[in-house]
Amino acid sequence: MTTFLLVLDLAGTFVFAISGAMAGVRFRLDLFGVMVVSLVAATAGGIFRDVLIGAVPPNAINDWRYIVVSVAAGLVAFRWHTAIERLRQPVLIFDGAGLALFAVTGTARALNYDVEPVGAILLGVLSGVGGGALRDILVAKPPTVLRSELYAVTAMAAAVVVVSGDLLELPPRPVALIGAGVCFALRLAAIKRGWELPSPR
Amino acid sequence: MTTFLLVLDLAGTFVFAISGAMAGVRFRLDLFGVMVVSLVAATAGGIFRDVLIGAVPPNAINDWRYIVVSVAAGLVAFRWHTAIERLRQPVLIFDGAGLALFAVTGTARALNYDVEPVGAILLGVLSGVGGGALRDILVAKPPTVLRSELYAVTAMAAAVVVVSGDLLELPPRPVALIGAGVCFALRLAAIKRGWELPSPR
Amino acid sequence: MTTFLLVLDLAGTFVFAISGAMAGVRFRLDLFGVMVVSLVAATAGGIFRDVLIGAVPPNAINDWRYIVVSVAAGLVAFRWHTAIERLRQPVLIFDGAGLALFAVTGTARALNYDVEPVGAILLGVLSGVGGGALRDILVAKPPTVLRSELYAVTAMAAAVVVVSGDLLELPPRPVALIGAGVCFALRLAAIKRGWELPSPR
Repeated sequence: MTTFLLVLDLAGTFVFAISGAMAGVRFRLDLFGVMVVSLVAATAGGIFRDVLIGAVPPNAINDWRYIVVSVAAGLVAFRWHTAIERLRQPVLIFDGAGLALFAVTGTARALNYDVEPVGAILLGVLSGVGGGALRDILVAKPPTVLRSELYAVTAMAAAVVVVSGDLLELPPRPVALIGAGVCFALRLAAIKRGWELPSPR
Repeated sequence: MTTFLLVLDLAGTFVFAISGAMAGVRFRLDLFGVMVVSLVAATAGGIFRDVLIGAVPPNAINDWRYIVVSVAAGLVAFRWHTAIERLRQPVLIFDGAGLALFAVTGTARALNYDVEPVGAILLGVLSGVGGGALRDILVAKPPTVLRSELYAVTAMAAAVVVVSGDLLELPPRPVALIGAGVCFALRLAAIKRGWELPSPR
Repeated sequence: MTTFLLVLDLAGTFVFAISGAMAGVRFRLDLFGVMVVSLVAATAGGIFRDVLIGAVPPNAINDWRYIVVSVAAGLVAFRWHTAIERLRQPVLIFDGAGLALFAVTGTARALNYDVEPVGAILLGVLSGVGGGALRDILVAKPPTVLRSELYAVTAMAAAVVVVSGDLLELPPRPVALIGAGVCFALRLAAIKRGWELPSPR
């Protein structure tokens, strides 16, 4: 993994850990329960991705930086959760940032392991949504990925940007930032405006 | 994977995707939610199987045919769900067909990767029940594998047929079809007649 | 895996299978449902561990001894569940024994696969808590790992003992037994006295 991707991946780990800790606090868990949900939210997406491409043991387990970042974020959120709550939808906003970052790094990492373009997009989406889905299952909420406006579509947008950039041989760093930016902006807009897809009649 | 097994595996993907989409429609998800449940139901069993035998990235992620079949089946079910609903228990019937097909292909694929006979049976059962179990968890239903009459036993019947055929060196194609046929017939009979196993007093 | 570790791992499989069967009986599942929960509780932690270190197919699937031990324990618990119920908290007590044994074997196995110390501790904890968490999700209970007094901390204590012993090059067998003993004693004390961690205000 390049240093650039590692930085994005650690940033995604940080924000997902906060989203997980906030979900645990709202579910009235004790300190360790909050840390477990935080760690699961922060690492599950990357673990799924690494297992599926055969990169074992996964970075999130074998690289101490992931663990330190994740635990630190969880402790910060546990300590200052009342301040973080003042953001309007803290779980969703931190989740959206993590979704954008992990969709990008997951897609790029799959491409580095010679996964086909369509498979790389799927893995990017799975990396993005996996941690949040498991977080929601742990705190007995219906996973946002099923219920929420265009959630997985925004992750797919980021993955498509990264795969397109790779096929067109564009420079990977700006492409990654654009992909993550597009995804996060779409997600914030979807949260704010309540965009929805058609439901079955 | 031989062409014959691939065809059975894609057929299983198709029917599981329909079962997943119908479960999503009943849960009143929007289009993307329905597609997510459909994709999970269609691919999770095969992904579990491939990860457990070390065949990564799994076919269901890295082979575009699985993705196309799964998405097409999901869209068909979303568009024509009222027609499909006229079948008496559409989720269970399509699920039963997928169970039969995946139990057979899962067992055969495990044998091809030199898994021991008992392990191959377990992997066949897991391939068969995995997608449906995750589908049910996503739409907050108790998994059929826990609640339903002889569900996992029918998958095991298919797996035992395939392993026995392999040990006796019988021709694999008719054995596979017999295994899938036995499993599907048992499952339909169990649904219709409400067969049950003993419960604890 | 050394014979010593194998014996501990099979003992953990046995007690987790009993905890799973008792949870299934309480959830009023039929025989096969009980066996499924029993098998999941007994094998999921080890399967997670083996997949994450790349030891596929996992022992719990490819070694008939795990399957025989797990099925035998499930049948015993199904048949004599009224006698086992007379223990005050049978699911929790057998779960605690499994937690202690799997935390130790999981950590030791990760070290044997050259996982870093912190990663080995995480894998030990995951091996210990994985089967019980999946068992609880299957019977629709909030996972003990989230709700209960110091649950994951006791698994971590066992893992830290094993990793410390390894770093200090102490003889592995007594270290493993001490680790498991510490964890089980802490867990029993936590169950009995209701120890708790701080909750968010």
